Amino acid sequence: MAQASPLVPVIILNAPQLAENIGAVARVMANFGLADLRLVNPRDGWPQERAWALASGAEWPLNAARVYDTVADAISDLQVVYATTARPRELTLPVVTPRTGTAQLAEACARGERCGLLFGGERAGLETSDIALCQAVITIPIDPRFRSLNLGQAVAINAYEWRMTVADAAPPNFRPGPGAATGEAMLGLYEHLERELETAGFFHPPEKTPNMVQNLRSALGKARFTDQEVRTLRGVITALSRGRGKVLEKIARKKEE
Amino acid sequence: MAQASPLVPVIILNAPQLAENIGAVARVMANFGLADLRLVNPRDGWPQERAWALASGAEWPLNAARVYDTVADAISDLQVVYATTARPRELTLPVVTPRTGTAQLAEACARGERCGLLFGGERAGLETSDIALCQAVITIPIDPRFRSLNLGQAVAINAYEWRMTVADAAPPNFRPGPGAATGEAMLGLYEHLERELETAGFFHPPEKTPNMVQNLRSALGKARFTDQEVRTLRGVITALSRGRGKVLEKIARKKEE
Repeated sequence: MAQASPLVPVIILNAPQLAENIGAVARVMANFGLADLRLVNPRDGWPQERAWALASGAEWPLNAARVYDTVADAISDLQVVYATTARPRELTLPVVTPRTGTAQLAEACARGERCGLLFGGERAGLETSDIALCQAVITIPIDPRFRSLNLGQAVAINAYEWRMTVADAAPPNFRPGPGAATGEAMLGLYEHLERELETAGFFHPPEKTPNMVQNLRSALGKARFTDQEVRTLRGVITALSRGRGKVLEKIARKKEE
Repeated sequence: MAQASPLVPVIILNAPQLAENIGAVARVMANFGLADLRLVNPRDGWPQERAWALASGAEWPLNAARVYDTVADAISDLQVVYATTARPRELTLPVVTPRTGTAQLAEACARGERCGLLFGGERAGLETSDIALCQAVITIPIDPRFRSLNLGQAVAINAYEWRMTVADAAPPNFRPGPGAATGEAMLGLYEHLERELETAGFFHPPEKTPNMVQNLRSALGKARFTDQEVRTLRGVITALSRGRGKVLEKIARKKEE
């Protein structure tokens, strides 16, 4: 039946606990024309029969579901990922409604970019470090008096909003120019920068490192760099750090003279 | 907690089969600020413990739920009722999306009219004779390849759309948060970076410098850094370049020893 397509967002579930909810997610994905499901560390392993039982026949997202160890792995080939979370965060990422968020993803998909929607597990939600890998936060306008939204419902509302963007289908706006770099390319950039900063003694005090890393990642992630820009920035990091080497060589030569 | 209000739509479930789904409906009603639940002929009677178990604490719609024998009874005090169904009917009622339908109900509520949303049971849906008692049909834009939408999801999507009309699209916990840094702050960042890159011999060949500078600036500018992020990034540049100094000092000390 439906096939994964680069023009339709991927659904990524981080640490889902209940197979029933994974099945409900598959069902609602099928309802709204989504097919590519990724699972990061499902608590009870994978596959699980209960998921198929609860999918009411929407088996293809489950059959094709892939399992990953980390969110970073799961989004490594994606160019635009929005995290869905009800919780306020210390990050400076834009916060949007499902309507605005899916409209933005629809534009990205229309440009040919590979997109994803990231959801946290039932109890723990998303780690800030995982949200920091995303380009925006989608927050469903829940009544603050009762915030406990079921995972399947959260996916349903976003999938419905996605479908509304497609069903209303304005002609796709093929904007020329390169798309955003993949999650993998961005992670490469981040890790390169963090290695050099570590060497330079930037992360001080050490216990603040995770926080500093996360703030840096979410700050840079907002730019949605192209592949070329990622290469340029890695050149910048290399230049700033290799600068050390060059100056050292000069000094060394001088001392020898 | 939340109270039934004449200014908020009533949710009416016709012949719901699974107590689990009734619980899920109560939960999502609480999520989106609805409280008045009416049940027409629940298959397994009422009350049922499973409903409370599945409501995750959203007990007040269940505690206050009223049971009726017919749809006509359940909506007898309401002035505007929209029926939600995925199936095309022979009726001449207007057919609208959840977005349009809930917007119209919001207008009716604002006029002081008592409104309701009617949903069919899991298997049978709604009878045409019951739909004929309503003023419009809401149809969720399901992918025609997989039309089996869970009852809780159908209520969730309409309740969400209702809430969007009330919440006026602003995420509830949206912090205004820090705005983007000024042009002056950004220029300070750019010039700092460019000075260090110049020192490190990054701009090569020299005639390409203006172009490289411009590409770097536009890449970084896309991120709309906050003031705090600009300070952090200047710290990054300083660390990477001061790294040189530290290493140099060490080397120099070693040579002296």
